[in-house]
Amino acid sequence: MAGGPLGSERMSSAAVETPVSDLLLQKLQKVRLFLTDCDGVLTDAGVYYSSRGEEWRRFSVRDGMGVERLRKLAEIETGIVSREGSGSLIQRAAKLDIRELHVGVANKLHTFHRIASRRQVVLEQIAYIGDDVNDEEALSAVGFSACPSDAEPPIRSIVDYVCRRSGGHGAFREVAELLISAAQMLD
Amino acid sequence: MAGGPLGSERMSSAAVETPVSDLLLQKLQKVRLFLTDCDGVLTDAGVYYSSRGEEWRRFSVRDGMGVERLRKLAEIETGIVSREGSGSLIQRAAKLDIRELHVGVANKLHTFHRIASRRQVVLEQIAYIGDDVNDEEALSAVGFSACPSDAEPPIRSIVDYVCRRSGGHGAFREVAELLISAAQMLD
Amino acid sequence: MAGGPLGSERMSSAAVETPVSDLLLQKLQKVRLFLTDCDGVLTDAGVYYSSRGEEWRRFSVRDGMGVERLRKLAEIETGIVSREGSGSLIQRAAKLDIRELHVGVANKLHTFHRIASRRQVVLEQIAYIGDDVNDEEALSAVGFSACPSDAEPPIRSIVDYVCRRSGGHGAFREVAELLISAAQMLD
Amino acid sequence: MAGGPLGSERMSSAAVETPVSDLLLQKLQKVRLFLTDCDGVLTDAGVYYSSRGEEWRRFSVRDGMGVERLRKLAEIETGIVSREGSGSLIQRAAKLDIRELHVGVANKLHTFHRIASRRQVVLEQIAYIGDDVNDEEALSAVGFSACPSDAEPPIRSIVDYVCRRSGGHGAFREVAELLISAAQMLD
Repeated sequence: MAGGPLGSERMSSAAVETPVSDLLLQKLQKVRLFLTDCDGVLTDAGVYYSSRGEEWRRFSVRDGMGVERLRKLAEIETGIVSREGSGSLIQRAAKLDIRELHVGVANKLHTFHRIASRRQVVLEQIAYIGDDVNDEEALSAVGFSACPSDAEPPIRSIVDYVCRRSGGHGAFREVAELLISAAQMLD
Repeated sequence: MAGGPLGSERMSSAAVETPVSDLLLQKLQKVRLFLTDCDGVLTDAGVYYSSRGEEWRRFSVRDGMGVERLRKLAEIETGIVSREGSGSLIQRAAKLDIRELHVGVANKLHTFHRIASRRQVVLEQIAYIGDDVNDEEALSAVGFSACPSDAEPPIRSIVDYVCRRSGGHGAFREVAELLISAAQMLD
Repeated sequence: MAGGPLGSERMSSAAVETPVSDLLLQKLQKVRLFLTDCDGVLTDAGVYYSSRGEEWRRFSVRDGMGVERLRKLAEIETGIVSREGSGSLIQRAAKLDIRELHVGVANKLHTFHRIASRRQVVLEQIAYIGDDVNDEEALSAVGFSACPSDAEPPIRSIVDYVCRRSGGHGAFREVAELLISAAQMLD
Repeated sequence: MAGGPLGSERMSSAAVETPVSDLLLQKLQKVRLFLTDCDGVLTDAGVYYSSRGEEWRRFSVRDGMGVERLRKLAEIETGIVSREGSGSLIQRAAKLDIRELHVGVANKLHTFHRIASRRQVVLEQIAYIGDDVNDEEALSAVGFSACPSDAEPPIRSIVDYVCRRSGGHGAFREVAELLISAAQMLD
């Protein structure tokens, strides 16, 4: 990918009307796999309990549309890497036909390395969106890092891109559209 | 409908105190059927999952009141056209006595044509509210198009009317009141 | 209640720091019964559906505290008058020990008259909070009328008091605290 | 803990970028136990009802991370003291491995004294976060008091620290990070 005429074009995400710098554009265009945290990214960090201990989570269909569009328009697969191993997440991932589902993950970067190795990509080709301190190491290691607008403050200061939208309310979709727009500029 | 004295009156929606242009008023007054998307319009795009894979959706009773008022005050029926085929939507539609319920729809405009043909109306007499890119074609084809305030950006730029209210929080009702006010100016 | 020294004092609601006029204070001090709508007042108008057609509603514990404080500090009972007859409301009312629970009410003012007659109060001694057009008649008839901040626009323009808080997020409690503060000024 | 060089340093919470005064820093550094209310602090005061009377509550995984970090980074245990005895809270507390769980508490300060006595700490070493009038006495008695941004107004005016975040949306976590930052300045 040349840094020339293409790199010097300005890209605006249709999803958020955010101008993206040349540097970010180059990072986005290298991405082959988009990994995401669950709680606080695909959800607003809320978890619903009954007296029977059941847990419910609220996801966004707009994010689901993002998973599908990434696959179809940019040939980028989505994976979920979560510290929790909740049944609600497993059900949601099944609905979206997500094959890279990793739950109960204590060390996210370790899991990223395993995924990268198996898929024959390097970390520079992975994008990741996370919201809390346990995402810090992984966010610092990948090619493109993002967080929802309401992420924990230490996270907001280390990522390539802070979304305009919050977790569970379109943050994932926002990055998905950035990736799609960047990929389409390559065509 | 003359464009004269009536058309040049200014209409203010009681629901949102939004002044509406003469052109929009004319479009609104032609409407005989109000179609709506489900996720992101009747809901805030949230879908709740348990570990048993159940899905819950949150609807608004204010929108339900809009369905009823449209029927009674403007003789306009409401229909729902959704890409998803969720049980929660089917239950909600039953509660509101909505007969035009179309779920699992891949091509919305195709469905609109079938509905129009059966009901002996033309697309110009249909209003539609949608929030995401899969609504774009249908929104561009109908007589009056709208989207919630928090619709995807590409959608916001193509509709006749962007609601002040967001999906699941009164966007549908806002358009319903516009239609009722426009109809009442004809009496 | 004299309009003199007492009436000319300024009252500030501890709950909302809202200065209340002498006229409103006099209206508040006459109230013996506080009636409330359910959907859109005790809730944010949301109703949750599953594929089994169950309905869930979200209430606020802060409002529950208001019911209790009204009873204890101002000897004012709370009643609920709702067009819907939902099981979730019945359960919530039971939890709060609310005896005046009227569900499936088509004509609210008619119900108000029956309640007033049985309790030997006049409408001037009833406060009511509602959010939608089917509350309009009842709101216009009672001694003190209020609506949540996010009520339908036609309702906002006819009530004595528009809350700072929205339905399901403390609107009921806000009026409860106004009533308590007004009652305590009489002691 | 000397009030000297350490006390005169300015502390900024990483969680909220809030500068904290020397006095507050000293109070924070004495804390050995962090007690919290449930409804309105760990939740947004919402309680979900079905027709079967079940109650659901929405908690935040970000707060859960706060409980864990307090334990690990500052050796501060978290306890919950609630007027309600809800099953959903009991399940959430179990998930977070919280041993100081006190439900159905009418007199919170009384419970605080019992906890303090058993744990051999004084009230000055306890932090408490609450949101409503039944928390007032306890908030006034502890070493460090806080409330969510959306607490009842009388509570906001008596606490040491009003959070930037609201109940159920990170208020507990915000105070947890303040406590952790203060403790780390002692090392």
